[in-house]
Amino acid sequence: MARLVMKFGGSSVADIDRIQNVARHVKREVDAGHEVAVVVSAMAGATNQLVKFCRDIAVLHDQAEYDAVVASGEQVTSGLLAIALQTLGIPARSWQGWQIPLETSDQHGSARITAIDGAPLIAGFAAGQVAVIAGFQGIHRETGRITTLGRGGSDTSAVALAAAVHADRCDIYTDVDGVYTTDPRVVPKARRLDRIAFEEMLEMASLGAKVMQVRSIELGMTHNVRIFVRSSFDKPEDIDPHRPPPGTLICDESEIMEHEVVTGIAFSRDEAQISVRSVEDKPGVAAAIFGPLSDANINVDMIVQNVSADGKTTDLTFTVTAADFERAKDTIEKARAAIGFARLDTATDVSKISVIGIGMRSHAGVAASAFRALADRGVNIRAITTSEIKFSLLIDSAFTELAVRTLHTLYGLDKA
Amino acid sequence: MARLVMKFGGSSVADIDRIQNVARHVKREVDAGHEVAVVVSAMAGATNQLVKFCRDIAVLHDQAEYDAVVASGEQVTSGLLAIALQTLGIPARSWQGWQIPLETSDQHGSARITAIDGAPLIAGFAAGQVAVIAGFQGIHRETGRITTLGRGGSDTSAVALAAAVHADRCDIYTDVDGVYTTDPRVVPKARRLDRIAFEEMLEMASLGAKVMQVRSIELGMTHNVRIFVRSSFDKPEDIDPHRPPPGTLICDESEIMEHEVVTGIAFSRDEAQISVRSVEDKPGVAAAIFGPLSDANINVDMIVQNVSADGKTTDLTFTVTAADFERAKDTIEKARAAIGFARLDTATDVSKISVIGIGMRSHAGVAASAFRALADRGVNIRAITTSEIKFSLLIDSAFTELAVRTLHTLYGLDKA
Repeated sequence: MARLVMKFGGSSVADIDRIQNVARHVKREVDAGHEVAVVVSAMAGATNQLVKFCRDIAVLHDQAEYDAVVASGEQVTSGLLAIALQTLGIPARSWQGWQIPLETSDQHGSARITAIDGAPLIAGFAAGQVAVIAGFQGIHRETGRITTLGRGGSDTSAVALAAAVHADRCDIYTDVDGVYTTDPRVVPKARRLDRIAFEEMLEMASLGAKVMQVRSIELGMTHNVRIFVRSSFDKPEDIDPHRPPPGTLICDESEIMEHEVVTGIAFSRDEAQISVRSVEDKPGVAAAIFGPLSDANINVDMIVQNVSADGKTTDLTFTVTAADFERAKDTIEKARAAIGFARLDTATDVSKISVIGIGMRSHAGVAASAFRALADRGVNIRAITTSEIKFSLLIDSAFTELAVRTLHTLYGLDKA
Repeated sequence: MARLVMKFGGSSVADIDRIQNVARHVKREVDAGHEVAVVVSAMAGATNQLVKFCRDIAVLHDQAEYDAVVASGEQVTSGLLAIALQTLGIPARSWQGWQIPLETSDQHGSARITAIDGAPLIAGFAAGQVAVIAGFQGIHRETGRITTLGRGGSDTSAVALAAAVHADRCDIYTDVDGVYTTDPRVVPKARRLDRIAFEEMLEMASLGAKVMQVRSIELGMTHNVRIFVRSSFDKPEDIDPHRPPPGTLICDESEIMEHEVVTGIAFSRDEAQISVRSVEDKPGVAAAIFGPLSDANINVDMIVQNVSADGKTTDLTFTVTAADFERAKDTIEKARAAIGFARLDTATDVSKISVIGIGMRSHAGVAASAFRALADRGVNIRAITTSEIKFSLLIDSAFTELAVRTLHTLYGLDKA
């Protein structure tokens, strides 16, 4: 017997048929003898409709009221799934964030979880009851107001609840059947990973493998919650209870027996590059550049600064999303006097390729082999950054697929 | 300065435009210097959709989960109206039933209000804040679960809240502009009443003048909450703040200077009559008839039993709604042995006409003049019941309009 948290997103509960399918998934686990808490999102489309209502009244609206409005979507799904479970003979009840309570900060619209009382849910398990929890929402203790965790917050709810009830596993049911070595649409030979370490998944998630919110993986890592990513579209009836289901376990690296050197390759196309040329090589220059960007709420991704050749000036390159490019360029140009640079070189059609793997910590030359393989294919590398478990390359977008496939094969990730 | 509770039903908040119209109505009262709490229903159609979701999963579903699902509709409207008020520069916040708290019994789906803490709302008034309250919903203290008050429960929420915050008036904005002497669709000369006593309104409401829930009027009577029924479709801009608005005040009879003999005439067409002939005139016969009907959840309206002529047997007549007729007949026939009657006479095309007025308490012959007037028109009266402030007549349905118009004129209710 295990204690499980099962999380289903909006597309998995989009209509009554799918909610009933979810109920059968839950029944399958209950029949196997497990204690189960389910975390649900709003029905697909419901949240967008509610957000639109708020915006139609006022583009800038009170975030506390926005939270009261949009949290209603998860409230509906939690009640409906509880009813669907009861019709299958499973004792179940819905829990709103304020009922548990799942306490958060008062940053309405993007609140952070501060405390969860797992006791009422655990008491429910003891009574044989499945808890159906409205994801995405909580309560701020002092004001007593409803809060929400921001888009994708149901993943975060699920992992945090799994930590609070000491669950053996948090199963994320989603529209893909696991985490792949890279995007299978680009590399048909991509294969599903059986396991991936939290740190690796963090890099994969933040680099565009949109399986889970980065925040929920951080939370899983902090509290060591084993997260299993699997498909919600499998028919519950077709699942063999005696075989491990298809999916990917995101876990502590100690649970992974032998690490591959490289676990996966992530990439993002919508990047833009800004190179600030001939800035004075002195303390405070980086702050002069990135302070104004931060003030403008522009998220900077790669930052590359090489050691100055002449000890006087240096070049500094960074990337932003294509959507932020014009604003970023304007921001830097406006700060020209404070920064003091010769010129800006920019490029918009660039992609970032990241090679990720805990194994590379103990293997020299992993990056070097990539540079060689890409050079053989005529792919020019514009910039390089590295960290302990990954390195990233900035290249012209036109070469994205070629580069990803080349590296995928190079590191032995192609499926047999 | 007064303290007002304003209540808006589903059709008044059916879309964003109408919610903004409601906000302007509220602003009008705030600008006039009043303290305001607003009670809102769900957007028209929203509750039906949520109920359908529950039914589509299971016709018989857990009422506690049903409550969690359907209460979300009012949650949405309360947040949206708070935003709309804020855009007009009015400090406002939404309140869910559990936040106030508005405490109820645990009869999910049709809970009764047990306690309301008015203090947080009154503190809000002192801070110049408009409270926007989700109607229809509450919380059961022991279980901490969301409850709902049943269809039309927002009226009840509004009146109960008005009592809890000691409001000077509870304004019910609805799709009619007040309470009429009778249905204007049947009697074009019907006129709007300026005032009506609680007791009279109770009779009007329970007899088909579907302006307000009977329950909310009972509550108003118990706590002496002055209720003003007015139209939500008036443009706030067109209302002259220096003149009393069109509408009907439902109030204690002491607030009505001089009572008309008759205040209004109510009628309902979908009645069916069952006469139980020659039952033994002894204790327990009425119980033998109405016990089984009650067990079958059949609502009996009129009951007429005349004094026995021979001291041995009597006839007993009652009415039910047309929808319950067949079931009622079957129920009585099955109980024939226990009741002991000669035969059943039934009629389905019958209407009940009720003449209502506190003034008739002090005026003899009010009913007699009706019998005479109807006889002059050839209307046969099948049965008569009377109470202190009304009398009801059962007639053939074909004569309904004729009878209502005749009595409306007879009692001087026609508008000039």
